[in-house]
Amino acid sequence: MKMISGGICAAKGFTASGVHCGIRKSQSKKDLALIMSSVPASAAAVYTTNLVKGAPLTVTKKHLENGKAQAVICNSGNANTCNADGIEIAEKMSFLLANELKINASDVVVASTGVIGQPLDVSVIASGIPALCAALSPDGCDDAAEGIMTTDTVKKEVAVEFEIGGKTCRIGGIAKGSGMIHPNMATMLVFITTDAAIAPAMLQKALSGDIADTFNMVSVDGDTSTNDMVTVLANGLAGNDEITCDGDDFAVFMKALNTCTVALCRMIAGDGEGATKLLECKVSGAADIPTAKTVAKSVICSSLLKAAMFGADANWGRVLCAIGYSGANVDVNKVDVSFESKAGKITVCVNGAGVPFSEEEAKQILLEKEIDILIGLNSGSAAATAWGCDLTYDYVKINGDYRT
Amino acid sequence: MKMISGGICAAKGFTASGVHCGIRKSQSKKDLALIMSSVPASAAAVYTTNLVKGAPLTVTKKHLENGKAQAVICNSGNANTCNADGIEIAEKMSFLLANELKINASDVVVASTGVIGQPLDVSVIASGIPALCAALSPDGCDDAAEGIMTTDTVKKEVAVEFEIGGKTCRIGGIAKGSGMIHPNMATMLVFITTDAAIAPAMLQKALSGDIADTFNMVSVDGDTSTNDMVTVLANGLAGNDEITCDGDDFAVFMKALNTCTVALCRMIAGDGEGATKLLECKVSGAADIPTAKTVAKSVICSSLLKAAMFGADANWGRVLCAIGYSGANVDVNKVDVSFESKAGKITVCVNGAGVPFSEEEAKQILLEKEIDILIGLNSGSAAATAWGCDLTYDYVKINGDYRT
Repeated sequence: MKMISGGICAAKGFTASGVHCGIRKSQSKKDLALIMSSVPASAAAVYTTNLVKGAPLTVTKKHLENGKAQAVICNSGNANTCNADGIEIAEKMSFLLANELKINASDVVVASTGVIGQPLDVSVIASGIPALCAALSPDGCDDAAEGIMTTDTVKKEVAVEFEIGGKTCRIGGIAKGSGMIHPNMATMLVFITTDAAIAPAMLQKALSGDIADTFNMVSVDGDTSTNDMVTVLANGLAGNDEITCDGDDFAVFMKALNTCTVALCRMIAGDGEGATKLLECKVSGAADIPTAKTVAKSVICSSLLKAAMFGADANWGRVLCAIGYSGANVDVNKVDVSFESKAGKITVCVNGAGVPFSEEEAKQILLEKEIDILIGLNSGSAAATAWGCDLTYDYVKINGDYRT
Repeated sequence: MKMISGGICAAKGFTASGVHCGIRKSQSKKDLALIMSSVPASAAAVYTTNLVKGAPLTVTKKHLENGKAQAVICNSGNANTCNADGIEIAEKMSFLLANELKINASDVVVASTGVIGQPLDVSVIASGIPALCAALSPDGCDDAAEGIMTTDTVKKEVAVEFEIGGKTCRIGGIAKGSGMIHPNMATMLVFITTDAAIAPAMLQKALSGDIADTFNMVSVDGDTSTNDMVTVLANGLAGNDEITCDGDDFAVFMKALNTCTVALCRMIAGDGEGATKLLECKVSGAADIPTAKTVAKSVICSSLLKAAMFGADANWGRVLCAIGYSGANVDVNKVDVSFESKAGKITVCVNGAGVPFSEEEAKQILLEKEIDILIGLNSGSAAATAWGCDLTYDYVKINGDYRT
């Protein structure tokens, strides 16, 4: 298993592109992205749990009923959500793209991200589709990754090479996600491509299993978006025997997928709106996994702790507080807490009570860009990790006037 | 029922005081408060639901087992939580105060608020107790209200006069609470006094019933504190027949209590850490009250909506989004949303979809200091209200470096 370049175009048979079509005002911002497989692929997806769902999700869900897809189109700048004609628009996007690419409209995954409840003029997207298709290229990953960005400050892409049954396979992904991100899916869009051969049902099983420990353990601001979606297309061009059941091949595939998704989770959390730090909360010694997950998520979601991390303030009482209100059944008198980064590791709480530590040393550790919050529950052997970021002035600035 | 002055000293037989004893560095900040009834009073309390509980809560709970109390002591600047010797310190505070006032230590309510997990030197408090007791005065409400403040920017006090069985009664309260405030009790301390005669069990019933619609519907930042507590002392000096069961007298008392608590809720939310606006979310047309409450709380807790309100941005999609992820069973296609303030009222969403509105008019409405977010679910007749505030640069500033 090794990290490689190329993102969503690393796998055989995939091309991508991104253009500016005019949804976003700035000409320099790409707002339309495309991913294309040269052959129809197995497809799987997971969607937001928000009751208010973007129209594109409804259309994509219908298109993926047969477990197959060949292309992904995604616009940024407008979520196409809470619009009376949303479904019609999402269907039109699929139809126009399919027409241009000479594929079936039902093989199109359609996604949108941006402001909710703003009218969307589909003719703007229509006008961009010919250029979008013409630009498809094996080097198009960067452009596509840029086309799906909203308040993201960096493009997010990853790719991994691995082997199944003697065949070299690749899996890669791009993601967008910066605000409105919370456990159980958020305005987070992730598109993953692989040339491994895997049956749709197993692909869905792999994805659904993976997100429980990855994307559902990320929180930027506690707001679960209406438009979240993670999709995987697997076109089989690597030539391995198709994975149709559990076993070694499936385990290897799961591991490759997880390597991609964990990397994307870290990128998303680290690029949270206004964030200056990536926070990784690692809980160990829990009685069971749900307890470990509940505690890790609660800590990573605490506004007070997030603000303290911004200020490089080792205010561990806020960690204890967040554990206490998490709803998990924890013996708070057994809890240990440490902070760790490149600059070192410091233990601040043992058995639920503070221990003397050097504030100066703690400050140096917390001034780093990546901070681990280590929590030992000393009540079992289950563990979990959650990812988040600090709460900063810029989060408020970005969200105080996002629409203008 | 009329609003009067005097706060916790409005009711007969209550005196109060506040001094600087030295827990807080600044000499000008009072950090110790006292409330005293001239006779033992019926007492009731509710406590935080956080598993990590401040030591003072454990001691107070024990002291109130008999439903009686005569004095309240509270320090700010240190929460006396997650300290190995916390219980010992809280007991010592009670003992020293009782000794000075010549009352029983078990008739003392003890509370602390401030940083969690910092060692607390009880001798500092001990040194302040004589001056604290000497300063007791019928005009002491302001000093006591100041003594319990942490990051609060204004003192919070209220009093109401009402009549039971021909006797004039008074009820008044002070509160502290600015950050770490969230539904189901938060670093919020509320001390209420009344001269109405009411049995301890009925007093507890009144308080427990009331907070479900008041303090448990307030959120500043989603963090439920370890030290929250609301207490009521009722000394009976108004001379009404003691309330011992449900009925008209109890109903009048409940209404007076509610008038106090709603006023304090609004003060707490409006003075949320860094807040520039009080947000009141009123949900109507719900199928049942739990649904109405869940929706109101979810909206008031959304970081994205709170930031939008700071920016006076009518980004109603974030209201819909927060309704959608609230967990309440709501038909999102029936939801109406309006914003209202002194400057007017504007409807932005009908039947789950946006309607055209003047951005300029919306801006004027949202630039006011008190904003109502009105949500109609059009699915029944239940209603609920929640209180919160906007998310601002100053929230981050205050919490990025609270300890220094």
